[in-house]
Amino acid sequence: MNQPEATVGDLGEQGILDTILPLLDSRTANLGPGDDAGALNVQGTEILVSVDTLVENQDFKLIWPSGLEHRAYDIGWKSIAQNVSDINAMGGRSTGAVISLSLPPTTSLEWVKDFAQGIADAINALGAKELTILGGDLGKSTEISVTTTVLGETAHGKILRSGAKPGDVIAVAGRLGDAGAGLSVLEHGSSATTWSRAVRRIAEAQCKPVPPLGSGPRAAEAGANAMMDISDGLVRDTARLAKSSGVSIDFERQVLQKFAARLAPAAQLTKADPMDWVLHGGEDFGLLAAFPADAEVPEEFTVLGVAKARSGRRSLVTVDGKTVTANAGFDHFN
Amino acid sequence: MNQPEATVGDLGEQGILDTILPLLDSRTANLGPGDDAGALNVQGTEILVSVDTLVENQDFKLIWPSGLEHRAYDIGWKSIAQNVSDINAMGGRSTGAVISLSLPPTTSLEWVKDFAQGIADAINALGAKELTILGGDLGKSTEISVTTTVLGETAHGKILRSGAKPGDVIAVAGRLGDAGAGLSVLEHGSSATTWSRAVRRIAEAQCKPVPPLGSGPRAAEAGANAMMDISDGLVRDTARLAKSSGVSIDFERQVLQKFAARLAPAAQLTKADPMDWVLHGGEDFGLLAAFPADAEVPEEFTVLGVAKARSGRRSLVTVDGKTVTANAGFDHFN
Repeated sequence: MNQPEATVGDLGEQGILDTILPLLDSRTANLGPGDDAGALNVQGTEILVSVDTLVENQDFKLIWPSGLEHRAYDIGWKSIAQNVSDINAMGGRSTGAVISLSLPPTTSLEWVKDFAQGIADAINALGAKELTILGGDLGKSTEISVTTTVLGETAHGKILRSGAKPGDVIAVAGRLGDAGAGLSVLEHGSSATTWSRAVRRIAEAQCKPVPPLGSGPRAAEAGANAMMDISDGLVRDTARLAKSSGVSIDFERQVLQKFAARLAPAAQLTKADPMDWVLHGGEDFGLLAAFPADAEVPEEFTVLGVAKARSGRRSLVTVDGKTVTANAGFDHFN
Repeated sequence: MNQPEATVGDLGEQGILDTILPLLDSRTANLGPGDDAGALNVQGTEILVSVDTLVENQDFKLIWPSGLEHRAYDIGWKSIAQNVSDINAMGGRSTGAVISLSLPPTTSLEWVKDFAQGIADAINALGAKELTILGGDLGKSTEISVTTTVLGETAHGKILRSGAKPGDVIAVAGRLGDAGAGLSVLEHGSSATTWSRAVRRIAEAQCKPVPPLGSGPRAAEAGANAMMDISDGLVRDTARLAKSSGVSIDFERQVLQKFAARLAPAAQLTKADPMDWVLHGGEDFGLLAAFPADAEVPEEFTVLGVAKARSGRRSLVTVDGKTVTANAGFDHFN
């Protein structure tokens, strides 16, 4: 059992949730098994709800070790991007948002303007054309913190993580590994002044992610059995989808290598294996979807592999048949 | 014009909003003129949305100057209370919530349990019986921060701040001044060990507010023309309602004094004038409502005064005909 002196850092996210959820038991009837967004039934229509927080020095650094300044614009952009991605991953369209912003009083007004412009531009550029800002909250803090809640609707009913079946084709839309590679170059000491245009683009994938909106509803229309966005890394998130669905999933290394090849400029700079970013990098907010073998997979999806019946009691994620496990380091508390 | 070096501390909340809102212009079509909650139309049903953030050392102190420890339970309670209050103030019922919690990794697991219990108990004890927790977010920070978003619905259409008419009766339900008095005793150096039971109850009004749920929908049924919750103080919030409605509002000192009399134990301790708490204290989350003169005001409301036609171009708040203005110090950034 837990010691009274246990800390949230000891337990990690799942341990904390395992502690909290029983206390809220009677109040969480609609809470899905870890899906990207919650759902509320309103007069027969299902409203999707997603919330995410960005905190200074945890989710971004105002000045990265590479020397790059993190723009307020990008913080505004990402706070929208990661939440509309969650709605997208359920096959939905984002319709409304509220934003709570906590700021040190010394923050410049220019910073706030730049932040708001990033929000407005993300909504437009990502194509969340039905999204309206419904309200917000402003307050004081010692570190910058932004919490955005996005509401959405689906036309075809929501797509869960749990519906993948043996024989399904597993495919991805959007970027894979770019944001992870971007994080590595941003963290790479004092290098920003030497970056090539290609490296700068990779860094931007971390600061200003582009989830493939539109692909969520298109995948739903094409008959996807299961879907989620990749926020914590391909292997970690695929393992969640596989476990929820009771299947194993095998990827083809050759296809993954095509994604890795695009990250060569970052790998040269940081002396890393780019395949690590493809397998374990988070925050690209690409879509991972399982389609029936006879479905017409929308063209922006790349088929990475297949779902298989489990051979034992555990759901496995394999690459060319060889088991891979998630890197440590993606739990927000570990 | 704003200087480039202007800070959010210089501008205050309204100045920041005046900067942000034009940038989000095309995206804020549904944003009301400062009402308690935003609204989203879902297939003909109006969904109300409210968000509020509590930040350590801004909205609560883990140990107050008086020596009182602020319980995690109360933080969970208040994060629910202040948002269901916003929905209540629109005449609505709360139906769903998402909660984002940012914590230092050294936070004890007991703290998290206590926090979750406060959430569950607030939902039950305040009577938000349709409220379901739909999801949340957990992350790391150096200071504790909780952002709760609550969704709601109304049966009779939402009640705005802007509908008060000359001749309307102005009434309040719930506490008035208690939370402000509570804040004063909590801040009163090293006094907690000497508190009487009455003072402890007043301190609790700050830590664990009890918005009068049920009174919002009842006021709506009784035909209230305008409504809002009192979160920033009676005078400040009444001025907002008066300005939105284009009226002036006059209160009777004799009635306000009855509320002040209840705060005598706190006033004795801190050598304060309890009328200051009644006029300027925030966070009781009582309901301020304007009823037509011939309406049957629900019995839990106390009539404080009347709305009058403006004599000049400005909306005034008066007590026995004498103008009162809001204290400084309630802007989150000033």
